[in-house]
Amino acid sequence: GGVDKAADFANYFCTYAFLYHQKEMLSDRVRMDAYYRSIFRNAKHFLGKTVLDVGTGSGILAIWAAQAGARKVYAVEATVMARHARSLIAGNNVDHIVEVIEGAIEDITIPEKVDIIISEWMGYFLVRESMFDSVIYARDKWLKPTGIMYPSHARMWVAPMRTSLVEHKQQEFQHSMADWGCFLQDTSDHYNVDMSCLSNPYKEEQTKYFLQTSMWNSLYPNQIIGQPVIIKEFDCLTTTMEEVSSVRSSFKLPFHPGHSRLCGFAGWFDVHFKGSPTDPADHEVELTTAPSTDETTHWGQQVFLLHPPLNLQDGDILSCSLDITRSRDNHRLMDVKFVHQLERASGEKTPLITSPYFIE
Amino acid sequence: GGVDKAADFANYFCTYAFLYHQKEMLSDRVRMDAYYRSIFRNAKHFLGKTVLDVGTGSGILAIWAAQAGARKVYAVEATVMARHARSLIAGNNVDHIVEVIEGAIEDITIPEKVDIIISEWMGYFLVRESMFDSVIYARDKWLKPTGIMYPSHARMWVAPMRTSLVEHKQQEFQHSMADWGCFLQDTSDHYNVDMSCLSNPYKEEQTKYFLQTSMWNSLYPNQIIGQPVIIKEFDCLTTTMEEVSSVRSSFKLPFHPGHSRLCGFAGWFDVHFKGSPTDPADHEVELTTAPSTDETTHWGQQVFLLHPPLNLQDGDILSCSLDITRSRDNHRLMDVKFVHQLERASGEKTPLITSPYFIE
Ligand SMILES: Nc1ncnc2c1ncn2[C@@H]1O[C@H](CSCC[C@H](N)C(=O)O)[C@@H](O)[C@H]1O
Ligand SMILES: Nc1ncnc2c1ncn2[C@@H]1O[C@H](CSCC[C@H](N)C(=O)O)[C@@H](O)[C@H]1O
Repeated sequence: GGVDKAADFANYFCTYAFLYHQKEMLSDRVRMDAYYRSIFRNAKHFLGKTVLDVGTGSGILAIWAAQAGARKVYAVEATVMARHARSLIAGNNVDHIVEVIEGAIEDITIPEKVDIIISEWMGYFLVRESMFDSVIYARDKWLKPTGIMYPSHARMWVAPMRTSLVEHKQQEFQHSMADWGCFLQDTSDHYNVDMSCLSNPYKEEQTKYFLQTSMWNSLYPNQIIGQPVIIKEFDCLTTTMEEVSSVRSSFKLPFHPGHSRLCGFAGWFDVHFKGSPTDPADHEVELTTAPSTDETTHWGQQVFLLHPPLNLQDGDILSCSLDITRSRDNHRLMDVKFVHQLERASGEKTPLITSPYFIE
Repeated sequence: GGVDKAADFANYFCTYAFLYHQKEMLSDRVRMDAYYRSIFRNAKHFLGKTVLDVGTGSGILAIWAAQAGARKVYAVEATVMARHARSLIAGNNVDHIVEVIEGAIEDITIPEKVDIIISEWMGYFLVRESMFDSVIYARDKWLKPTGIMYPSHARMWVAPMRTSLVEHKQQEFQHSMADWGCFLQDTSDHYNVDMSCLSNPYKEEQTKYFLQTSMWNSLYPNQIIGQPVIIKEFDCLTTTMEEVSSVRSSFKLPFHPGHSRLCGFAGWFDVHFKGSPTDPADHEVELTTAPSTDETTHWGQQVFLLHPPLNLQDGDILSCSLDITRSRDNHRLMDVKFVHQLERASGEKTPLITSPYFIE
């Protein structure tokens, strides 16, 4: 679509220009350990090689690549964070190896194709932020045919869940609509203006905000009430822009026994560092953002609530199709549509329900 | 400066496109009462006249202007809120008088010059958002030589204050820097990267965030510890873009007796509806956002904290010069500089202190 680049940049990049935000990512132990191990346990990939770090941020991945023996690392960063990266790289004595380039990956050039592209591009539920686009762009332009992607694979997961957030959000919504009622009365009493023709649009706006916007949450594993399913796998070496820009999937969600209520869906992702088919990793590394009691990440999980929740019977299976597309107004956000129905053990099927959501 | 319009629009207008946000303004009783009274107690100004409402939002001021007898009202709104305004205007049976025009005031045209420009353009500390620019632009292009501005005058106020926020923000800042210390250690221990060269930039970033960013606050009158001063007056009929784009002022702040500590400065504004020199209002109306126990507004006051606070002696006067300019990165935000020194009753003066702030 016709994305205005200046507007996109102003909105998207502003947070990444703060050290505070980079520090949050640098303090995510699960994330850091995964990248660190993926590089140093597979140093053979980096030894004497050329590397492109797409969105280097503080420069951390570029520094590790250099420490692991890379001959040359191009570290590209769109924001002014590039300047801090430059000083961090010098402060860690790898400025003879790492070259920082300030600019969007789509706008800059480097003098050669590279052996490895490394990037930490994953957004909430993997696809939020659409930064994978930039990595694919970089791959097609700058990766050697024999090159390796770090990470090499990515998967999106969905699971049925329970949570008290359902009641909480319902209450907030009801409270907001009650407040609107008072507002109507006051405005008519004091200021002679009848606002009632805005009641429906207001309700729509508040419905979207309270009930249809997916939420960040750090779930406990026991809030997952059925077998998680993989709804999409990406091979980072071959995935196209088109495959990334809209994700469609149909799947069945069975429930663990003893659960009588489905509150919604949890979405998360994992990525893997496996090297390439011709040059596989010595030690495959996984970075997962699945619900966990101790290995939590800053990504948490995205939660899509069902209003009202669904009552379950033992043996039910949820048949589900999911559609994730870019939001019309901002290609970095997503519109999500779950269409689902329960299949009873008896073979009976409940009516199809369509639940629209927005990843903001 | 070279402002990118698309980026500016994306950033600035997004909140105004939500009914929720318009409702917050429509629920501000002090604001609403002032505009309502200014119109209906001076209905002679509106009777049979043409009116331009700059930034009509929900359409409220345009509806009142029509109800007060205007012959024609042009209601201009940059965001999609224009559509809700249109329906509200029809719902209140004034759509034969009010014409809604969706677009920025700088981009649209109307078929005639108008008798009155009405607008609610005031941001925090008056000048944040820089919407006054758009009103001045509209005035120079569309107001008849005999025209009237609603409001007609605006003033900026500063007063010395006390608050426990000073300690609170200091603690947050210190906590954040202590946390950075742990982060340095962890990153070096676990990941072999020395982040210490970022300590100064991080400290600067956090200083700006915790100590130098002005804050919204709803102050009690007894937190004001000296005589408020008017630092700037605008006659909306004659003020130029230049006068608005940077505000410079020198003034003296005496303290009420018995206060031993200056924690910072409070800034607020008022506007007046006085009509014009040739057609003065029958009933002048004032809208003030000064600290108050019951007449609070959504604007509150802007608070500029002093770190550390200044110790006062009886009879001290603060001699102060203030400089408010547009921020380089975003012309809707402001850079503020207070340069101040205490003049003791003895005639002795303390050294000049420069305190920079950001209105974000
Ligand atoms: N198209 C693009 N070109 C250059 N940098 C980009 C980009 N899209 C996103 N980025 C940058 O990519 C970074 C992603 S966050 C990851 C930062 C760093 N690699 C780390 O792992 O800690 C952000 O700093 C963001 O500003
Ligand atoms: N340059 C411009 N052109 C048109 N509308 C503008 C504008 N700058 C700001 N606005 C709009 O002006 C409104 C200011 S808020 C005031 C809304 C309404 N007049 C009321 O009093 O309740 C917002 O809706 C904003 O979108």
